[in-house]
Amino acid sequence: MSLPIAYLTRKESFSACHRLHSKDLSDEENQLIYGKCNHINGHGHNYTVEVTIRGAVDRKTGMVMNITELKDHMDHAIMKPLDHKNLDVDVDFFKIRPSTTENVAVFIWQNLTRRMHRPELLYEVKIYETDKNSVIYRGRTFDNGNSNRVHSSVSSDSD
Amino acid sequence: MSLPIAYLTRKESFSACHRLHSKDLSDEENQLIYGKCNHINGHGHNYTVEVTIRGAVDRKTGMVMNITELKDHMDHAIMKPLDHKNLDVDVDFFKIRPSTTENVAVFIWQNLTRRMHRPELLYEVKIYETDKNSVIYRGRTFDNGNSNRVHSSVSSDSD
Amino acid sequence: MSLPIAYLTRKESFSACHRLHSKDLSDEENQLIYGKCNHINGHGHNYTVEVTIRGAVDRKTGMVMNITELKDHMDHAIMKPLDHKNLDVDVDFFKIRPSTTENVAVFIWQNLTRRMHRPELLYEVKIYETDKNSVIYRGRTFDNGNSNRVHSSVSSDSD
Amino acid sequence: MSLPIAYLTRKESFSACHRLHSKDLSDEENQLIYGKCNHINGHGHNYTVEVTIRGAVDRKTGMVMNITELKDHMDHAIMKPLDHKNLDVDVDFFKIRPSTTENVAVFIWQNLTRRMHRPELLYEVKIYETDKNSVIYRGRTFDNGNSNRVHSSVSSDSD
Amino acid sequence: MSLPIAYLTRKESFSACHRLHSKDLSDEENQLIYGKCNHINGHGHNYTVEVTIRGAVDRKTGMVMNITELKDHMDHAIMKPLDHKNLDVDVDFFKIRPSTTENVAVFIWQNLTRRMHRPELLYEVKIYETDKNSVIYRGRTFDNGNSNRVHSSVSSDSD
Amino acid sequence: MSLPIAYLTRKESFSACHRLHSKDLSDEENQLIYGKCNHINGHGHNYTVEVTIRGAVDRKTGMVMNITELKDHMDHAIMKPLDHKNLDVDVDFFKIRPSTTENVAVFIWQNLTRRMHRPELLYEVKIYETDKNSVIYRGRTFDNGNSNRVHSSVSSDSD
Repeated sequence: MSLPIAYLTRKESFSACHRLHSKDLSDEENQLIYGKCNHINGHGHNYTVEVTIRGAVDRKTGMVMNITELKDHMDHAIMKPLDHKNLDVDVDFFKIRPSTTENVAVFIWQNLTRRMHRPELLYEVKIYETDKNSVIYRGRTFDNGNSNRVHSSVSSDSD
Repeated sequence: MSLPIAYLTRKESFSACHRLHSKDLSDEENQLIYGKCNHINGHGHNYTVEVTIRGAVDRKTGMVMNITELKDHMDHAIMKPLDHKNLDVDVDFFKIRPSTTENVAVFIWQNLTRRMHRPELLYEVKIYETDKNSVIYRGRTFDNGNSNRVHSSVSSDSD
Repeated sequence: MSLPIAYLTRKESFSACHRLHSKDLSDEENQLIYGKCNHINGHGHNYTVEVTIRGAVDRKTGMVMNITELKDHMDHAIMKPLDHKNLDVDVDFFKIRPSTTENVAVFIWQNLTRRMHRPELLYEVKIYETDKNSVIYRGRTFDNGNSNRVHSSVSSDSD
Repeated sequence: MSLPIAYLTRKESFSACHRLHSKDLSDEENQLIYGKCNHINGHGHNYTVEVTIRGAVDRKTGMVMNITELKDHMDHAIMKPLDHKNLDVDVDFFKIRPSTTENVAVFIWQNLTRRMHRPELLYEVKIYETDKNSVIYRGRTFDNGNSNRVHSSVSSDSD
Repeated sequence: MSLPIAYLTRKESFSACHRLHSKDLSDEENQLIYGKCNHINGHGHNYTVEVTIRGAVDRKTGMVMNITELKDHMDHAIMKPLDHKNLDVDVDFFKIRPSTTENVAVFIWQNLTRRMHRPELLYEVKIYETDKNSVIYRGRTFDNGNSNRVHSSVSSDSD
Repeated sequence: MSLPIAYLTRKESFSACHRLHSKDLSDEENQLIYGKCNHINGHGHNYTVEVTIRGAVDRKTGMVMNITELKDHMDHAIMKPLDHKNLDVDVDFFKIRPSTTENVAVFIWQNLTRRMHRPELLYEVKIYETDKNSVIYRGRTFDNGNSNRVHSSVSSDSD
């Protein structure tokens, strides 16, 4: 039987504070690279995050995944650890790497796949740090000149 | 001659009501799966739909497709059958399957390709049921473990 | 070592005026094809443009590209030539082709890749002419029935 | 002691269906006045509602009202009776008057003032039926040629 | 009988071009005051306009004014004269005064009141020139140190 | 001569962090009243602020105030002290009162009126802490049961 393949996206927002500062860089380099985002007392954002699932539409329910289940995953993998938190102090992941939007996206991807029963359905994590700056992560990595996807998707075609 | 390949998107909104209820499930299962969306008297949404065409930019007109033509297709394939309607009562397609956003996207895809002179230009249908929930359908299906595109696109690369 | 591949997007707005009119078409054809956009005294838009970079996340900085660098590229390749300008009169590119949103996207793509030290990182230019109409260009062209990317990307997979 | 007077606004959304039909009008008049909104099988909207409180800023807490309290009022007075409901069938208020946005605003005003300990703090109810149509109600009525406010406000000046 | 007083707002968008240039100022003053908006070849915007009507809610229809009637007024008083036009060339009103957003608001107010059967119901015209700049006009003027409303409103209270 | 009275609004955004905590309350009361906003390591927001000026439209320039001047005031009174800052640590005003949105609005009002040559033109400061929560301050205070405006406006009517 032939089933449509669809992408389901859920959006949530969380408020957090942070300071961009890399332990692998000198204070001067940090200031030069991060500018005002390196301000010693920190600053913050209302982050908007969009999580996209990709999969076949179930014939009976007409759903790729129950949105209730997706919200539950996002609640545990995103809202609980990040909302109304200080990213650098409250989240272990950012104790050894700067809390750039790129790294926040990778953190959320890892947290989500760890919880999901079928992590191969996760297609994309998109984060808006502000209305003007956003980052997408799709679970791919760059290894010795090649790119790989962390989890194999439901089928081999690309989108 | 070399022509740029571009994606053209047009956004429209329509207001409709529905009730999520699958005839292939018991009343208890329907209530469990759809929750408040299964409320017997129905509810409704302002759906936002974005239709994307993908093709070569015409050298003379500078267009992938005349936006007037795209609006006309959307008027007939989306607005006339769905705007200010009860999806479950007024649209045959939803008499045999639940009117989930996934299925609304598939319905719109089928309606659009049926009308378009060059259906292979249709790239994506995206629907926002609310500001927080959206679905994308790109005409691909999952058959016996493989995914296929209903219409072959203008060229073989993926995006 | 394995590095995540991420997409970084920056959004800006510019205000410009133009008239859709192709020198390869008669006045009647221009009026027929472009309608009110062919009005002889012109009209205008607040264009919103989103530029997306795709690349590996640097281990030290946690960035695909410094957003300051991306903003600088956009300032020179987009804002300076287009903001508060008459596209048809002030920009040479549009003296020989109509200033459709498709062509504005191609112009911006070309301007950006000319400035960038690593033009292969440019992934996408998206322009909203209005809230309802938008165009994406990803640097691919259609040549004798095949599609090619102008610049080879960081890796061979498609997204 | 002098305290600043501020306005605090909270926004929520709810999804509901309805049909515009007045029992005081003939079927022809209903069709003529309400047009497609009079469609017999109904339609629906994602309503956005903004409730505004006006009052003195407490010196200790720095708040006009605790947003937690305001959310609780909105949950009981708006979300519970209206979200995922059929306005005409599920809400008594609309059994004797058409469920126009104007009347939805009046219903919410009455429901909120009935619950609030200090109803005189309620300043405004604003509802967006769609992105393009909205209604404001501030509790004033027109009686025999004069306008009156249902509840006297914290002070006599107007805003 | 007591009737609620409500505010009904309708939003529309139009695309136009213009150049800020006052005939009562020298070229140097124009350049100094208007900056890049004084660019000789012009520029343009997607203007968003919100028109607000204030009046008693009719007991039978539940409406302040039929939104169809308001749309018709806006079509004739705003869209026809301004959409896809050059404000300075196509509109007489701007031949003797600069086409600032303030003056566009006054022009729309005058055009609307001229058409409306009950102009005293017009409460506010709001225009967004860009997402960041907007102007409101409520029909009041400043005369010899006093402010007056051009049309007396339905009742004497202020909002 | 009769001049239109208009309202001119400019919107800006700033990113800051803070912790809601009142020194006039016990730790238990702070936790009870502010909830997760009292989290000891802080959190943050992208604040959006809209400043509105009210005054007569100048006959020559067609402006209430030059937007360049308004932007300059906002840059000094809002962006410099608040953007990419820790409100509680970096701003003296919040060392003796909690950094609620209400108090941020009062701080901005005071800072703006201190800089403006004609502070009586300031009409309103509106701040969105998140997309769902906002506060307006119009410079009025509540003193011994009466409300007063800090600066007398251009005319005595209310809006």
